Amino acid sequence: MAAVAAATRWRLLLVLSAAGLRVTGAPQPPNILLLLMDDMGWGDLGVYGEPSRETPNLDRMAAEGMLFPNFYTANPLCSPSYTPQEIVGGIPDSELLLPELLKEAGYTSKIVGKWHLGHRPQFHPLKHGFDEWFGSPNCHFGPYDNKARPNIPVYRDREMVGRFYEEFPINLKTGEANLTQIYLQEALDFVKRQQAAHRPFFLYWAIDATHAPVYASRPFLGTSRRGRYGDAVREIDDGVGRILHLLRDLSIAENTFVFFTSDNGAALISAPRQGGSNGPFLCGKQTTFEGGMREPAIAWWPGHIPAGQVSHQLGNIMDLFTTSLSLAGLAPPRDRAIDGLDLLPTVLQGRLTDRPIFYYRGNTLMAVTLGQYKAHLWTWTNSWEEFRQGVDFCPGQNVSGVTTHSQEERTKLPLVFHLGRDPGERYPLSIASTEYLDALRWITPVVRQHQEALVPGQPQLNVCNRAVMNWAPPGCEKLGKCLTPPESVPEKCSWPH
Amino acid sequence: MAAVAAATRWRLLLVLSAAGLRVTGAPQPPNILLLLMDDMGWGDLGVYGEPSRETPNLDRMAAEGMLFPNFYTANPLCSPSYTPQEIVGGIPDSELLLPELLKEAGYTSKIVGKWHLGHRPQFHPLKHGFDEWFGSPNCHFGPYDNKARPNIPVYRDREMVGRFYEEFPINLKTGEANLTQIYLQEALDFVKRQQAAHRPFFLYWAIDATHAPVYASRPFLGTSRRGRYGDAVREIDDGVGRILHLLRDLSIAENTFVFFTSDNGAALISAPRQGGSNGPFLCGKQTTFEGGMREPAIAWWPGHIPAGQVSHQLGNIMDLFTTSLSLAGLAPPRDRAIDGLDLLPTVLQGRLTDRPIFYYRGNTLMAVTLGQYKAHLWTWTNSWEEFRQGVDFCPGQNVSGVTTHSQEERTKLPLVFHLGRDPGERYPLSIASTEYLDALRWITPVVRQHQEALVPGQPQLNVCNRAVMNWAPPGCEKLGKCLTPPESVPEKCSWPH
Repeated sequence: MAAVAAATRWRLLLVLSAAGLRVTGAPQPPNILLLLMDDMGWGDLGVYGEPSRETPNLDRMAAEGMLFPNFYTANPLCSPSYTPQEIVGGIPDSELLLPELLKEAGYTSKIVGKWHLGHRPQFHPLKHGFDEWFGSPNCHFGPYDNKARPNIPVYRDREMVGRFYEEFPINLKTGEANLTQIYLQEALDFVKRQQAAHRPFFLYWAIDATHAPVYASRPFLGTSRRGRYGDAVREIDDGVGRILHLLRDLSIAENTFVFFTSDNGAALISAPRQGGSNGPFLCGKQTTFEGGMREPAIAWWPGHIPAGQVSHQLGNIMDLFTTSLSLAGLAPPRDRAIDGLDLLPTVLQGRLTDRPIFYYRGNTLMAVTLGQYKAHLWTWTNSWEEFRQGVDFCPGQNVSGVTTHSQEERTKLPLVFHLGRDPGERYPLSIASTEYLDALRWITPVVRQHQEALVPGQPQLNVCNRAVMNWAPPGCEKLGKCLTPPESVPEKCSWPH
Repeated sequence: MAAVAAATRWRLLLVLSAAGLRVTGAPQPPNILLLLMDDMGWGDLGVYGEPSRETPNLDRMAAEGMLFPNFYTANPLCSPSYTPQEIVGGIPDSELLLPELLKEAGYTSKIVGKWHLGHRPQFHPLKHGFDEWFGSPNCHFGPYDNKARPNIPVYRDREMVGRFYEEFPINLKTGEANLTQIYLQEALDFVKRQQAAHRPFFLYWAIDATHAPVYASRPFLGTSRRGRYGDAVREIDDGVGRILHLLRDLSIAENTFVFFTSDNGAALISAPRQGGSNGPFLCGKQTTFEGGMREPAIAWWPGHIPAGQVSHQLGNIMDLFTTSLSLAGLAPPRDRAIDGLDLLPTVLQGRLTDRPIFYYRGNTLMAVTLGQYKAHLWTWTNSWEEFRQGVDFCPGQNVSGVTTHSQEERTKLPLVFHLGRDPGERYPLSIASTEYLDALRWITPVVRQHQEALVPGQPQLNVCNRAVMNWAPPGCEKLGKCLTPPESVPEKCSWPH
């Protein structure tokens, strides 16, 4: 039944497509390639203004596709609830993940890189729809001593194949690591295999060279004008170029939808040596200012997306779920609310849809953007205590009453910015202006409706236990790399939102 | 004699040109078109990252030519010494201006727009080598009452043809003015006439719609995502597109060197409604931080400059003098030191030349950049007094010890930034680091040599007199627009550097 429905919808898509599809034999839905960067900032690409302009491949991708200057993540952290190794929980089985749904349309799915939705076996990607995995369940922090804390394992599919800083070295002194090259080979190999097998594929390339500790392989180290962080960007840019080149070489570019974006803003706390750039935007990762949540975003699909387009559609990373289903000819699940927008009419026909962007920090709705207006319901960077210790999410920036170090409630009288005239959130509209009142009159009911309709998820990450850390991942026996866990002591997690 | 020397050098240029020149008949040196914006910031173009991306023509110009992300003005103000109407002095006859020199190679020269080098008749463009002028001697401030202060005249060649706010209206309420369209027609007409006459031309298009009070013509008003300032940018972008289109239409694109840049950083004091964007850079106009002096810059010369190039050459607006002479096959004057670099080897062959950039404010050398290192010898934004009155050259930005409100001498221990890793000048290098010491060891002798070799110019703008204002410009009789000047009272000018 589902397959029939999918086929029907797929034909509909053919009609919708402005450029048409080259249908050869039976209609096969397009491959989907999601290139998700880690802590890369809006301003890190040449096409987004980085003065060093060291991303010729990404800039070309934008010139051949559609650039989204107003694209957002859902949360200003890698994982909506950053998951250390002590976490007992992870992604629940009740959540429907994209690769699970894409199976219905015959897709084979692979994740390369960081998972971050739970490191215990029941939460692994292959339990949630992915067919292949090469990468790690957690961030590449370390090195750890394997006594108080184990090094993070690297998996191939269901079993570990080594650990960071051991079989997969990262030299913190020189910044050398071969990981981006390994991740690139995994991507290229997967694409070639799927092409040979004539199967549609979904590849989720979630690499993390731009997350501190930043790394690059030897041919790229020292080649950038902007230090180690730039070296990492250059290697990623080169990798993206090689992936797109392979798609063209295999003549599947016109049947592969590629989307490039990042998971949150540049980590300015790690800048300038281990963090990127948020261009003209305010603050960075961890905050709900534009620098924390606006992302570089490029859609590429030769023959379908007209070249050289810019869309001012307000986009959200959640849209990639809905859009991917639409590409596959699948309807989104009907048993739950889906927040993502189908971006196909945008990329194919340039359609613009009014929709809000919600900026969350933990469980708090901090801000809302609608059209060009952003209303801050709360302002906060970090605590005075942290700030005094030198932790600064907004280095060099200070907008009075905006970059506050106490959590300031503004729900009664939100701070409103016009992001077109003032993308840097420096000049709040006067609360006495007609423009302010009109903006609020537009935004307020949208916020109310959102808050009334919202069904909070069950917290999954409240219980911690050092015994569940990556001591003895599946496959450790074969490698002789099993470590002995400490005694099981469940406790409430103490990490902050 | 000079003509012979010029011809010899012109043949030399043919040899140097990587792409070669299409010589048809006698070698004619290329036309030179300098598009100089007023108060436009580095970040105002799509290609430099402006999120609204409303400059498709300029972005295309960059894609067809060479982009200079590291291009500087010589001073963070419109005119190195901002010239109000009371100024008695102006450009001395002893200065050799580009159009004077280009005459030797047969060029006809026109200035369209703001002159700003003295408004009294002896200082006018036609007394300094230009053959034609359409524009104003001063900025389009106003409206004035023609009693205490006359409105600024608009000239065609030697005579005024009206005044701003009178024959050339600017509606401060709506922002409507037709001036960019008039300036555009002047440019297009001149190009067509010179092409028809087969004469090489130099066109200096110094338009000012992006200088507060910002204006646009009716078809562009309200069309931008970023307010009136964006409307002005859109109209200019459209104008540049039409100029380049005409060059192609007339088949002279391959014989016309076009350079686009601006006179100083965006005026953040006028932002967000009347000022632009300096992208990721610190502060704006009036300061010697990057936001005050780094400029958008694009070189375009189809068939000669390879398309899609980016040059990290440190460039300076003074280079356009030397480069233009080189294009015309002329040697720079030998009786004086010329600071400009010939950029032809850069644009034609991608050559990079180590050279310093000096950041002056008034007579004070505030900072020096060499390679990627910038050393601040002095730091200052504006006085505490001004700042407390709400005059802010760095809104929303505050880098401790850098954006100071007192003039801080750092000559003994300069503040040093690595502009590649840290274009926003937020993280001074540690003075204990090897990198700091190496940078200073490189920069210090360059500063010393510069200061020892510098021959200060004679101040020309110290005497003011209300009697010399634009009361009765040449041609006013014919229009019946002569005003009666007040009594002559010479006094020391009181405006600040």
